[in-house]
Amino acid sequence: MQNFNYCTPTRLIFGKGVVEKLPGVMEQFGKRILLSYGSGSIKKIGLYDKVKELLKDYEIYELPDIQPNPKYDPSVLDGVRICKEKDIDVILAVGGGSVLDCTKAIAAGAKYEGDPWDLITYKVKAKAALPIVDIITLSATGSEFDAGGVISRTETNDKTAYSDPLLYPAVSFLDPTYTFSVSKKQTAAGCADAMNHIMEQYFCEDSTLLNDGFMEAALKSLMINTRKCLENPEDYTARAEMMLCCTYGCNRIYSLGNSQSGWPCHGMEHALSAYYDITHGEGLAIITPRWMKHILNEKTVKRFVKYGVNVFGIDEKQDKFAIAEQAIDATYRFFESINIPMHLKDVGIDEKRIDEMAKHVAENEGLEEAWAPLLEKDIAEIFRASL
Amino acid sequence: MQNFNYCTPTRLIFGKGVVEKLPGVMEQFGKRILLSYGSGSIKKIGLYDKVKELLKDYEIYELPDIQPNPKYDPSVLDGVRICKEKDIDVILAVGGGSVLDCTKAIAAGAKYEGDPWDLITYKVKAKAALPIVDIITLSATGSEFDAGGVISRTETNDKTAYSDPLLYPAVSFLDPTYTFSVSKKQTAAGCADAMNHIMEQYFCEDSTLLNDGFMEAALKSLMINTRKCLENPEDYTARAEMMLCCTYGCNRIYSLGNSQSGWPCHGMEHALSAYYDITHGEGLAIITPRWMKHILNEKTVKRFVKYGVNVFGIDEKQDKFAIAEQAIDATYRFFESINIPMHLKDVGIDEKRIDEMAKHVAENEGLEEAWAPLLEKDIAEIFRASL
Repeated sequence: MQNFNYCTPTRLIFGKGVVEKLPGVMEQFGKRILLSYGSGSIKKIGLYDKVKELLKDYEIYELPDIQPNPKYDPSVLDGVRICKEKDIDVILAVGGGSVLDCTKAIAAGAKYEGDPWDLITYKVKAKAALPIVDIITLSATGSEFDAGGVISRTETNDKTAYSDPLLYPAVSFLDPTYTFSVSKKQTAAGCADAMNHIMEQYFCEDSTLLNDGFMEAALKSLMINTRKCLENPEDYTARAEMMLCCTYGCNRIYSLGNSQSGWPCHGMEHALSAYYDITHGEGLAIITPRWMKHILNEKTVKRFVKYGVNVFGIDEKQDKFAIAEQAIDATYRFFESINIPMHLKDVGIDEKRIDEMAKHVAENEGLEEAWAPLLEKDIAEIFRASL
Repeated sequence: MQNFNYCTPTRLIFGKGVVEKLPGVMEQFGKRILLSYGSGSIKKIGLYDKVKELLKDYEIYELPDIQPNPKYDPSVLDGVRICKEKDIDVILAVGGGSVLDCTKAIAAGAKYEGDPWDLITYKVKAKAALPIVDIITLSATGSEFDAGGVISRTETNDKTAYSDPLLYPAVSFLDPTYTFSVSKKQTAAGCADAMNHIMEQYFCEDSTLLNDGFMEAALKSLMINTRKCLENPEDYTARAEMMLCCTYGCNRIYSLGNSQSGWPCHGMEHALSAYYDITHGEGLAIITPRWMKHILNEKTVKRFVKYGVNVFGIDEKQDKFAIAEQAIDATYRFFESINIPMHLKDVGIDEKRIDEMAKHVAENEGLEEAWAPLLEKDIAEIFRASL
């Protein structure tokens, strides 16, 4: 078991109707709010009007139109500008993980005099950040319970993950009923994202019975509950359990004391969605089983056996490589069964830029240090196998 | 799934050698420290000298001799007096859960003008508390990651659980090597305490696949790793995993969204250790299987089946009551196998005060509201079955 240092100051307020508590929560931060949100789905489900009504005594400025794979320009830059011009006290992010990731970059940038890209790339360490409150409308990234985010810069094909303890949301509101209207496509992609967050922690050298059991339970729960959500989008219990499994995703609580895995699938997927702006969860689902096949060897097989037996109930009396291969196949088939496109060509990616992307990943993601090290040629092979 | 509101601001610093970080951590709180500890085991293992050396630039006052089942008089009262007289900035608790529980009452009492008992009994709500840092030397209570404590008042046989968000430790240091010298008796009692914390959350009406899997993994891990610790007290990996399983015990992270159980075994055991000052974990181990037998019925059986199949691997093809009874028997036999005395008479408790204790519990613990409601006669029956 590895040493660790862990603290999550975020308050989770979870359940049906909890947004009613919003005015009381915002009070502690001040009167001037930047409301950040996405393409308008929060208007369709009535949440935008609800928030405006609840906060009618506050001074609200708005940053709409934050895109999936949120962009440095214009979203982060616009948000920072508004915060500075309007002397914002607190940012309220309403939407999915992209809105919240973008909001985190804005929160740090608002308290920094220079170019916010300095903070995102760790050229400068943030000294302060605006407080963040969020209302989550999509179960996926877990950004509501972690200190990080991912920002894309279109002109350079950069998709950069950054993290700073200052950026834990102060309060995250999680009402599963706001996920009832999430499309089947986004529900499935959210499941794949969350499952991959767990696998990125599970597949490592040193874990514990406790963490393995916790993660295996979360993987099984995500599969079972996502199916239920797809069958009946208003199944409260299924939406709620899926939401909590996702919330824990990047918080580290699933794997405190585990050795590092290097988060290889995220490292690779960031190039796909930076170059082609695809749905992050779909990119992960496509890459994951190919990555698994690629790294399966005498050293890694024991983790695949445990995963196969405990998550998919594969008969443990078989040969270890047979179990591992069945586990990888079961992973692929699960994603396929929830209608995720399982080939890069299905999401508009062809052979053309594969070598360029592999080079970008190899140079920027440190995957040669991963549990199962990946060099540029490995990354290119995994991309090609995913075509 | 139930609504919940969750926030744990405590920082966990976990692993071999982490206590070296103590001076840097204490800096933020001030120079005047109250060092609280127990009967002197921290002197035997060299931790007392280590702490004094690390904090040689601080002004340290001491509160030694805090007893198991920590006492309001003298420990809490003495601690509060020292804090006020010496204008203490922060309390450093070094020891097990009793030392930390006592320290929490002191931290609140130090910032209150009246009798600290008002706070412990919720007659008055605490408005402030001194910050608390701890170094844990016993895996058991989980007090290092929760906001509560239990204080005993000898003259009235009260053993009162209290809790206040102000009382989360600011920082908890957890170095498993400091538990190497814990006796077999205390190792086993700590395991029983932690297992019972989990069972008190597991046995309820409404749980999730996620929480059940997490708790089942923790129960299995505690059993396996406790056996390893008893065989080889210096097995770092086993001590470390046992420590983390215990740390989560009362934090609620095992069961966010679950319905309430009422913590019946703790309610009953508090009377045993208040009247007879027995080891809390042993009292819990004795009561738990008798409580299980007592509440087993058509309504509760489903949870026992899940527990039996998933924790003990009992064949699920049997009759549900047969599975439940085997699960209860397996629970009893596990505690017996780690040499916990499994009868009240083994720990010096006879028939004499059973009715008086049952009345005390029925009047003070609210167990008529538990998942499986317990009236005074039920409590007396469980106590008698435990003789």
